[in-house]
This record gives sequence, structure tokens and C-alpha cells, in this order.
Amino acid sequence: MSLLSIGTVAFDAIETPFGKTDKIIGGAATYISLSASYFTQNLNLVAVVGEDFPAEYIALLNSKGINTDGLQIKKGEKSFFWSGKYHNDMNGRDTLITELNVLADFDPIIPASYQNCEYLMLGNLTPMVQETVINRLAKRPKLVVLDTMNFWMDVALEDLKRVLTKVDVLTINDEEARQLSGESNLLKAARKVLTMGPKTLIIKKGEHGALLINDNDKFYAPGLPLEEVFDPTGAGDTFAGGFIGYLASTGDLSFENMKRAVIHGSAMASFCVEKFGTENLLNLNKQMIADRVAEFSKLVNF
Amino acid sequence: MSLLSIGTVAFDAIETPFGKTDKIIGGAATYISLSASYFTQNLNLVAVVGEDFPAEYIALLNSKGINTDGLQIKKGEKSFFWSGKYHNDMNGRDTLITELNVLADFDPIIPASYQNCEYLMLGNLTPMVQETVINRLAKRPKLVVLDTMNFWMDVALEDLKRVLTKVDVLTINDEEARQLSGESNLLKAARKVLTMGPKTLIIKKGEHGALLINDNDKFYAPGLPLEEVFDPTGAGDTFAGGFIGYLASTGDLSFENMKRAVIHGSAMASFCVEKFGTENLLNLNKQMIADRVAEFSKLVNF
Repeated sequence: MSLLSIGTVAFDAIETPFGKTDKIIGGAATYISLSASYFTQNLNLVAVVGEDFPAEYIALLNSKGINTDGLQIKKGEKSFFWSGKYHNDMNGRDTLITELNVLADFDPIIPASYQNCEYLMLGNLTPMVQETVINRLAKRPKLVVLDTMNFWMDVALEDLKRVLTKVDVLTINDEEARQLSGESNLLKAARKVLTMGPKTLIIKKGEHGALLINDNDKFYAPGLPLEEVFDPTGAGDTFAGGFIGYLASTGDLSFENMKRAVIHGSAMASFCVEKFGTENLLNLNKQMIADRVAEFSKLVNF
Repeated sequence: MSLLSIGTVAFDAIETPFGKTDKIIGGAATYISLSASYFTQNLNLVAVVGEDFPAEYIALLNSKGINTDGLQIKKGEKSFFWSGKYHNDMNGRDTLITELNVLADFDPIIPASYQNCEYLMLGNLTPMVQETVINRLAKRPKLVVLDTMNFWMDVALEDLKRVLTKVDVLTINDEEARQLSGESNLLKAARKVLTMGPKTLIIKKGEHGALLINDNDKFYAPGLPLEEVFDPTGAGDTFAGGFIGYLASTGDLSFENMKRAVIHGSAMASFCVEKFGTENLLNLNKQMIADRVAEFSKLVNF
């Protein structure tokens, strides 16, 4: 099987109560791909960067088994850049700078060699671009997972609703589930979102964990209490990458296996937040991940 | 074994997005005792009400096996009254009226027949009153659990810190754990609170569940997603009553058994919020509770 990830590959500059970074590698597709790379090796990427994007960053992705034939490099243009500052409690953040640059007119071109993809992860992007990717695949993947955010519900709700009819799994946070459904009760919100297209919904609750739900069943993955939370940037994308990467590696789309995928995604996200940016995602191994999954198991077992 | 509960027995008037009540029976000790009554029968209560408190409410408590010899009835005075209105998302509320009445000079007198208590639940009250109860027991109970809130951290922090050195288990919410410790990271906050007296800490997270933690171990009980959340009033007290009631019924104070106690407390709280006030706590049975505990198990098992 192969896994295709779409999203931003970009620069981030991050400030948290524990420090700040210069421009470092970031973007949804970066976190998704790095996270998935611990589970499956046939990884493809569709994204766009500018001429300013360092070749060593691309080499880094390649070294993790991520094929970047679908990474467009726009001559004379600049990469997407986001800068943000987290509040003291790490639960909120202010965006300081958003420079769309190459993202403003991103046309997601799918290399012919990517056409056989069985797993598709649509990272947070304009819903129109997400839809274009689905439409440009000759054969529908076995599983399509979409991540989005409140911003697109505010400015592109009809586009978002249309692409939702074409996906299998949606990942959003609890406030976004409430906004999308118009229901304040989270379970009712989930049930309504499940009528909008996705057969399965994952509600991300940050430090409180995640809820996996379909029409028949539900599963609650706890948030692992961590001594050090340095930087929440990319945690949701890392979760999504671990989730779909685990599913791709097992080939089992049952609800029981999706539970395990959610735990593996949560484990990856817990590593992500312990250091700045992608730093902690570069030096993991299978044993570390297995140990952390075991911590989740111990945490909820009674 | 016997379980002694201290706290308010009072009137509440509640408004939620789903309706409003006239003055109904409320108060921390009411919820604690009713919840615990499903687990253990040797239940004693120390509290104070005014002459306005209906005899049938007291008879109701008695019918659930709750001894009210320790319930002082002040002639010519009025019962504690609280009125509040919940926000649309049910996660916040405004206090509309607080009439201390009999609570203003509450002196917790322990009947001689209560002196043998093995389990002591100190519901949310002035820390001085909570401490007085501990001091008036000739023999230290096997387990002392204390519930408190941010208000006492604001106005009586030194009193609270002193009583904390005398208790085994503390229950507070996540914001209160941060306030009490001065640590924004929840795990660090917990570790610091565990140096202040309690050997075990329960951090209540409302709809997100609860975290049980001691120096060596931690356990996360999920929040059960519910279709109907009518009224969160008393949920924390109901949780505490189920927790200590389960421990009293089993006599096992190991961390493993405390996990089960947290789940039983969470199950009781989940019933509480499904109807107004104490309504849902009056008509449960052991099978309904066992079924709900099984739902928690199913929710987290992977």
C-alpha cells in the first residue's frame, strides 16, 4: 500500500513560554509524513514550497523514506510562513504572521507514480484544494482522511461541506465539531457530523485526548499527562500521520483497529509536543513508540 | 465500616439551557450521601439547615439509609441557598444568588455515635470547618477525602494548606490544581500538590474525565460522552460520593482499587448530570450502575 499526504510544507517561527525559534521546518504535510514514516515506508507527498526552502530539509524528508516528487518548488517565490506565540497555559496561541506566498495559488499536481495510492491524508488546507486532490486521483483510495479547522468553516463552509461528502474519516477539535454541527452537546454534534459524509469522526481534545466515533461505537483515547510540553505546534498533524500510518501498515480498517490507530497517533503527538517543532519526530524508534503505547494502555486500564 | 460526610445540605435554584427549577434539595453533602448510598449503608451526615428545610427532604435522605442525627436544624433560621445559571455550553455558570444563612456560623457537631467512622468525606466548605471535623474525631479515620474549590484558595489559602496536611485524598479540578501549585503543567502541578499533604490527588476535568495520581502511578478515567446533559450541578460531589462509597464498600485502599472507585464515581456523576438536581440519583439500582461502569470499560479498551 502507499500513503499520499497533502498539506503545507513550510517555515514556522514559534514562541512558547519555554523559548523561541527562528524559521524552522514546519507545515501539516511535514508533520504528517514524518509521523507516518515510523509505520509505513511507501510515503508520497504533494505540497508546494518556494525557492527559499533549503535542499537539506527536502533531503531530510527523503531520508525518512518520504518521496518528494510531488513537492513543487516555485522559482522566485517564497515558502508559506507562519509565526505564532503560545499563551502561558499552552492551550491558546496568537498568530503573529501568516505569509501565504506560494500557497496563495497552490495547484496540487499529482505525479503519475502517486496514482496507485491506497491511503490519502488531506492535511489542513483550503477545502477546494483538498477536493481537487480527490478528483485528480483516477481510483478512489481505500481510505480518505481529512483534517480541517474552524477558519474554513468561517470562510468556505459550502466547499468544506462538499468535500466532506467524499471522505471516510474527519479529524477536528471539539469546538470545531460544535461549530460545524451547530450542536453544543458533543455527542449530538458528532452524530450530526456523521450525517455529513464521513463514516468516522475523530474529535481532538488537545491535552484531554481524543474521541473516535462512528454510528455504532465510540472510543476515548486519554491525553497522556506529560512533564514537559514545550511546543504544541504540529501535534494534530502528527496525530493524523500516526493514525493513518498505523492503518496503512496494518491494512485493517475495522473500528477495533482504528482504536489502536488513535492510540498510536496520540503516542506520536505526545512525542511531538515534548520538543520544539519537528525535533522530537526525527529521532524516535519503534521501541520508544511501543513503550509509549504501553503507557497509554496502563493509564486507562482498570 | 461507616462513612461520615460533611458538607452543605441546602436549597438550589438552577437554570440551564434546558429549563429551570424552583428551590430544590441540593448541597454537597446531599449529593455525596445519595451517591454513596448505592455502595454502602452505614452512612452518617454532619450538616446544618434552617427551619425552612422540609421534613420530607430529611425523610428522603433517611429512606436511602442516611443517618441524619448529625443534621442540625436551626430554629428561626433559613437554609443555605444557591442559585445559578449555566451558559449554553454547560461548561461555565454564573452564580445569581448566594445566601449563606445557617452556614455563616456553622459549628460541625459530631454525634457520639459517629465517632467510629472509618471513612470521612469532607465536602466543599470553609477549610476551618473541615479541619474542625478532623480534630473532633477521637480516632483518625482510615481514609480522609477532601473536596475544595478555587474560592477557598483565594480567601483562606493558609487554612486550606493546613487542613491539606491532614487528608489522604484531595479532589479539585484542573484549574484549581494549577492555582494551588502555581504550576501551569498539570503533571507538575499534581506532583507539587502531592507534597502538600494528600498522598493521592484526583483532578476533575468535567466532561473530559478525571485523573487519579499518586507519587508512583497515574490513571485517566474518561468522560463518558452523553446525549443529554441537563444540569451539571452536584456532579463533582456525586463523583466524590461514589468514589468514597465504593472504597468503603470494598475496604481496599490500593491504587488499583482507587481506579475502580474513580470509575464508579464517574459513573454516578454521569447519571447525575442527565437530569435536574438530585432527580436521577433517587432512582438508580445496582444493575444500572454496573451497566454504566461497563460502558466506561468499553469506551477505553483497545
